[in-house]
Amino acid sequence: MIVDCALYVKGQTRHARTDITAALREARAGGGFVWIGLFEPTAAEFAEISEDFTLPTLAVDDAVRAHQRPKLERYGDVTFAVVKPGRYVDHEEVVEISELAIFLGEHFVITVRHGVSDVPAAVRAELNTSPALLAHGPAAVLYRALDLAVDGYLDVVEAIGIDIDEIEEQVFGDAGGEHSERIYKLKSEVLEFRRAVVPLAVPLQRLVAGEVPWVGAAAQPYFRDVHDHLLRAADAIEAYDHLLTNVLAANLAQVTVEQSRVTVRQNEDMRKISSWAAIALVPTAIAGIYGMNFEYMPELSMRYGYFVVIAVIAAICVGLHALFRRNDWL
Amino acid sequence: MIVDCALYVKGQTRHARTDITAALREARAGGGFVWIGLFEPTAAEFAEISEDFTLPTLAVDDAVRAHQRPKLERYGDVTFAVVKPGRYVDHEEVVEISELAIFLGEHFVITVRHGVSDVPAAVRAELNTSPALLAHGPAAVLYRALDLAVDGYLDVVEAIGIDIDEIEEQVFGDAGGEHSERIYKLKSEVLEFRRAVVPLAVPLQRLVAGEVPWVGAAAQPYFRDVHDHLLRAADAIEAYDHLLTNVLAANLAQVTVEQSRVTVRQNEDMRKISSWAAIALVPTAIAGIYGMNFEYMPELSMRYGYFVVIAVIAAICVGLHALFRRNDWL
Amino acid sequence: MIVDCALYVKGQTRHARTDITAALREARAGGGFVWIGLFEPTAAEFAEISEDFTLPTLAVDDAVRAHQRPKLERYGDVTFAVVKPGRYVDHEEVVEISELAIFLGEHFVITVRHGVSDVPAAVRAELNTSPALLAHGPAAVLYRALDLAVDGYLDVVEAIGIDIDEIEEQVFGDAGGEHSERIYKLKSEVLEFRRAVVPLAVPLQRLVAGEVPWVGAAAQPYFRDVHDHLLRAADAIEAYDHLLTNVLAANLAQVTVEQSRVTVRQNEDMRKISSWAAIALVPTAIAGIYGMNFEYMPELSMRYGYFVVIAVIAAICVGLHALFRRNDWL
Amino acid sequence: MIVDCALYVKGQTRHARTDITAALREARAGGGFVWIGLFEPTAAEFAEISEDFTLPTLAVDDAVRAHQRPKLERYGDVTFAVVKPGRYVDHEEVVEISELAIFLGEHFVITVRHGVSDVPAAVRAELNTSPALLAHGPAAVLYRALDLAVDGYLDVVEAIGIDIDEIEEQVFGDAGGEHSERIYKLKSEVLEFRRAVVPLAVPLQRLVAGEVPWVGAAAQPYFRDVHDHLLRAADAIEAYDHLLTNVLAANLAQVTVEQSRVTVRQNEDMRKISSWAAIALVPTAIAGIYGMNFEYMPELSMRYGYFVVIAVIAAICVGLHALFRRNDWL
Amino acid sequence: MIVDCALYVKGQTRHARTDITAALREARAGGGFVWIGLFEPTAAEFAEISEDFTLPTLAVDDAVRAHQRPKLERYGDVTFAVVKPGRYVDHEEVVEISELAIFLGEHFVITVRHGVSDVPAAVRAELNTSPALLAHGPAAVLYRALDLAVDGYLDVVEAIGIDIDEIEEQVFGDAGGEHSERIYKLKSEVLEFRRAVVPLAVPLQRLVAGEVPWVGAAAQPYFRDVHDHLLRAADAIEAYDHLLTNVLAANLAQVTVEQSRVTVRQNEDMRKISSWAAIALVPTAIAGIYGMNFEYMPELSMRYGYFVVIAVIAAICVGLHALFRRNDWL
Repeated sequence: MIVDCALYVKGQTRHARTDITAALREARAGGGFVWIGLFEPTAAEFAEISEDFTLPTLAVDDAVRAHQRPKLERYGDVTFAVVKPGRYVDHEEVVEISELAIFLGEHFVITVRHGVSDVPAAVRAELNTSPALLAHGPAAVLYRALDLAVDGYLDVVEAIGIDIDEIEEQVFGDAGGEHSERIYKLKSEVLEFRRAVVPLAVPLQRLVAGEVPWVGAAAQPYFRDVHDHLLRAADAIEAYDHLLTNVLAANLAQVTVEQSRVTVRQNEDMRKISSWAAIALVPTAIAGIYGMNFEYMPELSMRYGYFVVIAVIAAICVGLHALFRRNDWL
Repeated sequence: MIVDCALYVKGQTRHARTDITAALREARAGGGFVWIGLFEPTAAEFAEISEDFTLPTLAVDDAVRAHQRPKLERYGDVTFAVVKPGRYVDHEEVVEISELAIFLGEHFVITVRHGVSDVPAAVRAELNTSPALLAHGPAAVLYRALDLAVDGYLDVVEAIGIDIDEIEEQVFGDAGGEHSERIYKLKSEVLEFRRAVVPLAVPLQRLVAGEVPWVGAAAQPYFRDVHDHLLRAADAIEAYDHLLTNVLAANLAQVTVEQSRVTVRQNEDMRKISSWAAIALVPTAIAGIYGMNFEYMPELSMRYGYFVVIAVIAAICVGLHALFRRNDWL
Repeated sequence: MIVDCALYVKGQTRHARTDITAALREARAGGGFVWIGLFEPTAAEFAEISEDFTLPTLAVDDAVRAHQRPKLERYGDVTFAVVKPGRYVDHEEVVEISELAIFLGEHFVITVRHGVSDVPAAVRAELNTSPALLAHGPAAVLYRALDLAVDGYLDVVEAIGIDIDEIEEQVFGDAGGEHSERIYKLKSEVLEFRRAVVPLAVPLQRLVAGEVPWVGAAAQPYFRDVHDHLLRAADAIEAYDHLLTNVLAANLAQVTVEQSRVTVRQNEDMRKISSWAAIALVPTAIAGIYGMNFEYMPELSMRYGYFVVIAVIAAICVGLHALFRRNDWL
Repeated sequence: MIVDCALYVKGQTRHARTDITAALREARAGGGFVWIGLFEPTAAEFAEISEDFTLPTLAVDDAVRAHQRPKLERYGDVTFAVVKPGRYVDHEEVVEISELAIFLGEHFVITVRHGVSDVPAAVRAELNTSPALLAHGPAAVLYRALDLAVDGYLDVVEAIGIDIDEIEEQVFGDAGGEHSERIYKLKSEVLEFRRAVVPLAVPLQRLVAGEVPWVGAAAQPYFRDVHDHLLRAADAIEAYDHLLTNVLAANLAQVTVEQSRVTVRQNEDMRKISSWAAIALVPTAIAGIYGMNFEYMPELSMRYGYFVVIAVIAAICVGLHALFRRNDWL
Repeated sequence: MIVDCALYVKGQTRHARTDITAALREARAGGGFVWIGLFEPTAAEFAEISEDFTLPTLAVDDAVRAHQRPKLERYGDVTFAVVKPGRYVDHEEVVEISELAIFLGEHFVITVRHGVSDVPAAVRAELNTSPALLAHGPAAVLYRALDLAVDGYLDVVEAIGIDIDEIEEQVFGDAGGEHSERIYKLKSEVLEFRRAVVPLAVPLQRLVAGEVPWVGAAAQPYFRDVHDHLLRAADAIEAYDHLLTNVLAANLAQVTVEQSRVTVRQNEDMRKISSWAAIALVPTAIAGIYGMNFEYMPELSMRYGYFVVIAVIAAICVGLHALFRRNDWL
């Protein structure tokens, strides 16, 4: 699906949805360029454009099928780049990765977007308001797209940082509990995010080194800046990866201790209950003996036998209680 | 065992099972090439072919014995490549790795397959239907075989991804349970798969760099594309490796907590039962005392002695019950 | 906010808060340099200076927004460096990272500080007292800032080392206990600190290699010395990272054992109590039998029946006690 | 100790134990070479040979003292190589590493063996039966020794793989149990084995690159083949290392669950026993009350008092039993 | 503190404590060199020497302050090296790292030792007895110091290996127990030791490559030999690091199982005791019923009531016992 088609000539923007070949001719004539934006095109939809601009078949395939690595490839005069902008859906703790394929020729830019990303729209808006940017030709689109994508990475990095802080508070906070699911899922997002971010370093290095046609030496500091920001994002991702591994281990330690504390308290309760029960068995046993019906039991006829027995029982119970106390059982 | 022998001359395919040397001569004359496909040949079976095409001995050895690393070696004019296609047997969660050795000369291709793989058959089918492909000569076979093998890797990667999702659901789902065996076995498959995938990067880089004879500059973008897909597979394998390690740790945490929860509940039950038992001991003990047969027990002859004792017992039991409740034991 | 503006000409220091352009002109004329120190300037505050010195826009952006990686970039004649001094707040076990952006021209140095750091003030003090240093021009500022920052890293490294020693004493000391929170938090500080320290190696290597303008060959040994100290800090950070991972595991082992010891002792108590209770049940049961009111119970009328029963009870109890002792239950 | 001394001239093998210098002279004259094989020589035993062949002192030291890393060093015309053949002692699950130092000159090979290895004997046997091999001169000995050693590594790798399969069956099999000792010990063997295998890659790369004198370009494919096999062994070792770490973790998970299952079942037993005991306390307590000897207890003289009480006891017991059943305690 | 000052001219050793400048002059004149050995000098003590020999200030700083990384730096004609000899204090399981800074000029060597190390004394002794060594000039001191230090590393490595064997015996031996403290502490020593050993590889590579003045090509094989031994030590350290991590995990597994075994046995005891107690409750309960004082209890007046009840009690007890046996509770 063609989302937009614009013609930029002499610092002017003209929307030219109708005739792509005419627009391309005009761009060539006027030293400007055409930008065609597509969204998840089918192979058929893309075929005509691909022919008009004589795009390299392999790159067209990649752009249509998506699920590519971030990369930058030269096919003669045409440069093909793939960047994967990301955004953080905070309430789900999910990094949503979209994909943006960019064909760069002397007089055209073709962008193919897969998934949700506001990068192309933002670049378009900038172009429309900045003639200075337009002066750099198609490379400006590449630069802005990469810059915005990498800035987006830094936003994601910050958002993940906040979630890690939250996890730390949960793990080490008073509530305790087991958080391995949340930690694992965030880690799995970080790993997927890394696959979008880290491989972009090589294309950026090549842009900084000036190996890409239609990207002049003047543009190199800009790409170096983007590269630098990318490294920052990559550093943070690496650190988060480590942190999450460690917080998982720490959580396991915490949970183990927490649970053990519960068990120990329960065991103490049991010991206390059992100790009391053991004390209660004494009067039962002794009284049982004097409840026997033997005809000849001399104690029974003693005047103070009863009182003596009661006293003995009480003494034993008190003694046991003191003993258990000393053993820390009560 | 020779599976197939085909002669490709001037865009035409001719099956030529009978006379290999004649076919080779014809290929040389007509600027075409012969493709001989073998399946797990014995050294003896391979010896004759090896002689006819003057294949390098070391490479022949490797091709017959199999269990090679993915590689690409030059022996004078002959290029020897080993690629290990993989496929995922989903119901066993096993990656089945086969092996395909390819000898590439100016006028011949010899493929030696070990294990089950549909890559050679698929390449043959493509050649038969695409004269454009045939125009590239033997290199086309190498390209298609590598491309299909790497595409197969991406399929395996996707299938493993689905299994990891399943494992995540099991581990973090309501059913809980211990899944270390499944996780470990999948991880062990991933490790083996990696050994088939990752070393292929070096041969592909060499093909991209144009260091291989009979592979023209025009073919380089194609190999670059394959290389790129390989890197994608390798990235995913790396990520899966990490994920599985983490899910194993998370599972251990989950299981620990789950089991602890069971133990805690069991302990609570025991505490409750013991508490009731302790309460039941009170009437037994007191009643035991008044069941003694002493002749002189003043309480026995009291008019309301019995009722007083019953009341005392009841009071103590109720009191204990309240106390245990307050301690959260009941 | 401009913190300070100084003019260094012919080994002399002059404070020149009023007119920056005049100071710059004078510096150029006299072969000296101007140093302007800023603290967390807004984009607006920085705009004028940036114009006066024709600073590169991208670098100005980075300097204003902060949160950069340590780096060193050339923009024509201007060198832009970012260094992140750190200090250890011992009572919180936190590494506080500040940020210092440095613009280096032939006749000026502009430093932009974010966060708390005494590095710029210390450099200024050194400049004011050392004419020899001044002779090196703006590069002296860069050298001193890097040297002091790296020396600060070594202080932090030492302080962390002391905290790790403390943790080791806690973990392996008699008090025992679970310290995963402290270990994790220190580890997370180490990881953040690493992100400030390690990337500085590349800028320093470039300074040592003499790739930076206005940094003469004479300055290279100085930067090599700083580089060397940086590597020392990086080595230590790496080692601490490993140590903390290991001490976390060791702590988990210790805690597991400690808790288990508590449980085992509790279980022993329970076994002891239960054993005594079991013994106490014997007289109760036997006495209960002779407390039955059957009319015909021959033992009851025996002359020594009572004494025999008492003896039997005592014998059983003593026997049980001995048995339990032998089983190690008492 | 000199194990063997052979003279190979013009494709002929002659044993020449007696006079080494004469043999060397003859080898030089006839364009052949002398091979002297030693077994754990003392410094004194080796001194004479070392002098005759003017071997480099440092290398001689290394060869006598053994415990070297696999390496390849040039000392002028003499090449010194160390390779560490390994073999797997299956019943002990131990990798036995021996050491083979090889001095290579234009007209001589000196091999120094430490420990048990059949590599030198096998090389000798091959030389005696293959004149083609002899034609390559001393380099043939180096090639065959490296090839056989690396083939031996692949055998060890396979044997370790079988043991890992066994461990997996033990860990995940029905018998369960704790296998950390076996896993750890095998891992420790793998680590030691790696130290023998992996460093050999550098010497082999140098041989492939043709940096070694007396090793012609014709020999390079052979060394490349060995190098390739070495990489295969190294890949497998890496994978085994990972697998063993993971199986250790999985085993811990399994054991934890297994033990917990035992504890849970024991706790269930205890709950059951306690529940029955609690039920048994009811008749004791109630009967105790009616066993009291108060003179005035109205129920005692009721006609059906006894039966009512029995019925009440039975009702309570049945009720408790039903309650416990519902709580899943019985 | 100056420990020693020696003058080596024409293969002769002369002690020259008195006048350093005179000694240096003589060394220059005679083509020999002066060796000054210092032990933990203060900055003031070192200042004079530093001036006499015009040593580079930065290096002097490093030598005085110590705590450097192993390194090798060129300052014009002067080479500055730092090596950190280590020795293993077996009864404390501690690696004691000392530090040796070496200044190398055409006619002098200055060594600065921090901590306890017998390396300088050993080098001196060798020099005094070996004129051949003296002939190499100051480089001989560097070579011998590095060689002895690295040999010391190998001794430490061996001693650590023995301690690891001991730990393995403890962990997997019959005594069992928790050894995380010992394992952790040894690991922490290994990590510190690594920081002394591994960075030395770079200086040695530079010496092998001949980048260091006053170190001739003839010396390169010697340094290569040292380098090789260093790599051997580094390999072993790496392996030990892995082993200790694994033995910690294995120990945790062992301890978990061991403790669990104790708990299981305790639980079995409790079950046995409780089972017996439950049996004992039967006669108590039944006898209690027939001990009630109801006037109308038909069984009491039966002729064989008593015996029937005794028989019933016995039957129930025997039955319960059999049941518990079958349940494996007794």
